[in-house]
Amino acid sequence: MTTPVTPSLHRTKGTSLHRQMFLVLRERIVTGRYPADSLIPTEEDLCNHFGVSRITVRRALNDLEVAGYLRRKQGLGTFVSSDLPAAREAATLNFVEALHKSAEETRVEVLSVEKTVPPPTIAEQMHLAPDVRAVHAMRLRRIGDVPVMVSDAWVPEQFAKSITATTLKKHAMYEILLSQGIEFGRVIQEVTAFAADPTFARWLDTEVGVPLLRLSRIVYDGARTPVQHLTLTVNPEHSRIVVDMMADSMNTLRTGQLVHDVPRPSAVGKKRAPSRR
Amino acid sequence: MTTPVTPSLHRTKGTSLHRQMFLVLRERIVTGRYPADSLIPTEEDLCNHFGVSRITVRRALNDLEVAGYLRRKQGLGTFVSSDLPAAREAATLNFVEALHKSAEETRVEVLSVEKTVPPPTIAEQMHLAPDVRAVHAMRLRRIGDVPVMVSDAWVPEQFAKSITATTLKKHAMYEILLSQGIEFGRVIQEVTAFAADPTFARWLDTEVGVPLLRLSRIVYDGARTPVQHLTLTVNPEHSRIVVDMMADSMNTLRTGQLVHDVPRPSAVGKKRAPSRR
Repeated sequence: MTTPVTPSLHRTKGTSLHRQMFLVLRERIVTGRYPADSLIPTEEDLCNHFGVSRITVRRALNDLEVAGYLRRKQGLGTFVSSDLPAAREAATLNFVEALHKSAEETRVEVLSVEKTVPPPTIAEQMHLAPDVRAVHAMRLRRIGDVPVMVSDAWVPEQFAKSITATTLKKHAMYEILLSQGIEFGRVIQEVTAFAADPTFARWLDTEVGVPLLRLSRIVYDGARTPVQHLTLTVNPEHSRIVVDMMADSMNTLRTGQLVHDVPRPSAVGKKRAPSRR
Repeated sequence: MTTPVTPSLHRTKGTSLHRQMFLVLRERIVTGRYPADSLIPTEEDLCNHFGVSRITVRRALNDLEVAGYLRRKQGLGTFVSSDLPAAREAATLNFVEALHKSAEETRVEVLSVEKTVPPPTIAEQMHLAPDVRAVHAMRLRRIGDVPVMVSDAWVPEQFAKSITATTLKKHAMYEILLSQGIEFGRVIQEVTAFAADPTFARWLDTEVGVPLLRLSRIVYDGARTPVQHLTLTVNPEHSRIVVDMMADSMNTLRTGQLVHDVPRPSAVGKKRAPSRR
């Protein structure tokens, strides 16, 4: 919990430096920070910025070239490819107004639906006694051929009568829950990021270790009973979360508040308390 | 854009497999998916799950042991350490109600304040002509010794009269803007994840390549003129975004909507259109 200021790339033995560089540079290209056809920094500048050897930089650039992100021009430098898909549009007022008009077009694949005991963390959040089973549904959504979202849902048995692989192929889960007469009350949602494990990397057609964006949600009914625990996982290269709000609700829990789980200076050694910003 | 189903760990030459495993397993420990004192899967199970050799698994487990996350007990297996900081509490109704009572206690360090030309993507979002300068302020927030958030703000010159290193040490930027008589209107916010580059890894005291959570925000005034572009970057091991909403505003732009930037099947080859889910 101290704050050393040594360059991070030297701290971890056995880390694949060129792979880290590959991911960082690819992210800059995909998000348009290095636009199509632009000249990227020189090998020397990259060596200095990343604090690594020329060999490492060359390997990362070579991997990016092989993957189609870069073109090297003898004597001129290294350029971002011109035939990349258009960089995604930044979220602005205009973007959001266009969004209101666009339609949903994902296709769902039901990966599994089963009655099973949830992991302890989920059971606790759902107020389920240990060893009580719940309905667990895994789905994968695609746009065209591109897998965009893994959805991992848990519903207590008494609310899951109509939740089957068949109904989930035709309806969103919240529609099924509503059709059963369940009334939704509050929803607590949490957004975080994590490194892709082999399972998610395969589902989302990406690589182990890349950053994924995760949205976890508990939906309560009007009586504050949890009716659904939903975890949505997406690849930030394809997906992001957009919010359109009035400034007076900014930094509030209503529209999303950053919460830091760090022991307070006065509470070091004690159980950590939630803090907010 | 096709969807190969080959296991991802074999796809990328030169990737450090044991490092990927380290990050994935550490995330499971830090988030409590592998609770303190619990037995983790056997080396053989991990080999199968990650599709890697026993040597790779051993190296990842060894690195986790050295870093204090695991304890190996001869003949018994490998256990999560018992003296880990308490796992963070999942966001639930109770958690959120406790949050309302907690106070903010971050300390700000002003890293830089300067008048300079913003990068093209920011200039465009701010409706600034190219080569027009704006005030750029970088700040780092800490709780105790732990750096928790990097804040990167751009404000057009005409709105930035009172924004200096001195005022930022004492006041949040939105307070300064309000004190100048600016009225806030809508706010468009975007949440994504990316791999830490060397600069952010150093500021947030973490390693290059780990997933970071990023919240970008454009604040408009009542006349729809952008007054601030703010990018907040946090480490998801310490920080997350929590939302408390009513179910009827779920999946709307008001509380956050997942947007997928994938070409529509009917629009392949054309400019991609935003899609939503």
